[in-house]
Amino acid sequence: MNSNIALPKHVKIVEVGPRDGLQNEKESVPAEVKIELVNRLSSAGFRNIEAASFVSPKWVPQMATSAEVMAAIERHPGVVYSALTPNMQGFDAALAAKAGEVVIFGSASEAFSQKNINCSIAESIARFEGVAKAAKQHGLRLRGSISCAFGCPYQGEVPLAAVADVVGRMRDLGCDEIDIADTIGVATPRQTQAVMRRAAQEFAIGGLSGHFHDTYGQALANIYASLEVGIAIFHSSVSGLGGCPYAKGATGNVATEDVLYLMQGLGIETGIDLDIVVDAGQFIAQFLGRKGASRAGNAIAAKRAG
Amino acid sequence: MNSNIALPKHVKIVEVGPRDGLQNEKESVPAEVKIELVNRLSSAGFRNIEAASFVSPKWVPQMATSAEVMAAIERHPGVVYSALTPNMQGFDAALAAKAGEVVIFGSASEAFSQKNINCSIAESIARFEGVAKAAKQHGLRLRGSISCAFGCPYQGEVPLAAVADVVGRMRDLGCDEIDIADTIGVATPRQTQAVMRRAAQEFAIGGLSGHFHDTYGQALANIYASLEVGIAIFHSSVSGLGGCPYAKGATGNVATEDVLYLMQGLGIETGIDLDIVVDAGQFIAQFLGRKGASRAGNAIAAKRAG
Repeated sequence: MNSNIALPKHVKIVEVGPRDGLQNEKESVPAEVKIELVNRLSSAGFRNIEAASFVSPKWVPQMATSAEVMAAIERHPGVVYSALTPNMQGFDAALAAKAGEVVIFGSASEAFSQKNINCSIAESIARFEGVAKAAKQHGLRLRGSISCAFGCPYQGEVPLAAVADVVGRMRDLGCDEIDIADTIGVATPRQTQAVMRRAAQEFAIGGLSGHFHDTYGQALANIYASLEVGIAIFHSSVSGLGGCPYAKGATGNVATEDVLYLMQGLGIETGIDLDIVVDAGQFIAQFLGRKGASRAGNAIAAKRAG
Repeated sequence: MNSNIALPKHVKIVEVGPRDGLQNEKESVPAEVKIELVNRLSSAGFRNIEAASFVSPKWVPQMATSAEVMAAIERHPGVVYSALTPNMQGFDAALAAKAGEVVIFGSASEAFSQKNINCSIAESIARFEGVAKAAKQHGLRLRGSISCAFGCPYQGEVPLAAVADVVGRMRDLGCDEIDIADTIGVATPRQTQAVMRRAAQEFAIGGLSGHFHDTYGQALANIYASLEVGIAIFHSSVSGLGGCPYAKGATGNVATEDVLYLMQGLGIETGIDLDIVVDAGQFIAQFLGRKGASRAGNAIAAKRAG
């Protein structure tokens, strides 16, 4: 009977739909649609929106218009717009685009790292030293994102020690915030708590974020379990944008609307207006020509329609 | 930091897809398809399957073949096949059909009771006295199902005292098991725990079950929260069968595959083979001509397909 576990009173929701979401959609979305989406999200009250990725358009054509998007969005005071920066070229582009935060990334799975970028985890993180230093010099926030922290499509289980090791490396590079990501959505609540607790031994818990995918339907249970151990930053994607590249046709990022509904029910403040997010979700789902993947979003929209 | 909350080691999953699920699908499913579905579920290892409703076919045409289904299914030893029995006529039919358990029902919402059956909660429960007595006489299990225990489409909030009152009435009728149902899927985890704790003051917690809908995506989080307070029986519907009659196009019953994936991850025994359930889910989704509503089911099927 856990009546005494206090949950955080406020949480930060990082909206990742415009970048992580749309990057994993088959269809490329035109800049003007992305701009409208980001603007809608800004007015909903998010303090952090992942909006761009400055990576070669050869590899990620979905993100080719990142500079255009960053130049045209309405900048709301207090909102941090984040950009992925795989290298110094990306960093320079992010700086020019006035990103408030740059995101570096690595995997907690050695097999994933080898398969995807053909180098060890340690090497892949070391490559970000230049970006990390440049971020500090220019006063940009630095976020480190750790994929496959709960399981890997190639090696299966990922040891706690491996997560802890990457968290330590990200911390040593000077990260202000570190994402613990369930890239393939396989985590369940007790495992989530074990990983988060271990990560919190390496980095202040207030700077750790939970990035969950709903591939197996577990994301909200994992978020609730994360709240129980003190995690207070979560990533989510409006309308559940983004699929799962490792299981075609399966669900990807947890939907922002579902997360906001959860937080409301728990009496946890986010500063975000769920109704505006539902509208934004309907807007982008309509553009993509499909039903949105947020259950709360669909239920609220259905209720409105009577 | 809740490392010390022990979860139940075993839980009973009541598969409600063939009745609660299919009753809420637009399309009526022929008896032979239901029979095949129930048989597949029986071989998956469920100990309890809600398979029939002996209600007027004028009101619920989807259930008109209940006697035919109950007569033709393979009876697996140790499996209880349940039937809804709104009245003595229904009870007699359930008895003749060799149901192992009869289900009576009521609402925790006065407004819902009035709107739906035009009488008070107290009156509606009292009407089941005959069925309850007959069940005892004939040695059938008696289950009481309480709808709108977490919220009502008409009155909104439902007081804890109202839930407690109905639980007490169901107990006094002699129920062996009582379902606390989130008919419209609005509950969140802390509310869930409060309702379950209150219900457990009126009835042995081992006989309380959680019936959650995934309308707002909260079902698995609520199930996890229920486990934390000791609930060890849950309802679910294969492939997420059944919509939400109060929000068209929204999700209904939580999907069995998602619940089983959660239990596996938590190391909780169910005695059920998830792979066979995934197959059963694919079978019925294919019949209905749509993608299943279970995220775990879809992910596992996608993974199998490579």
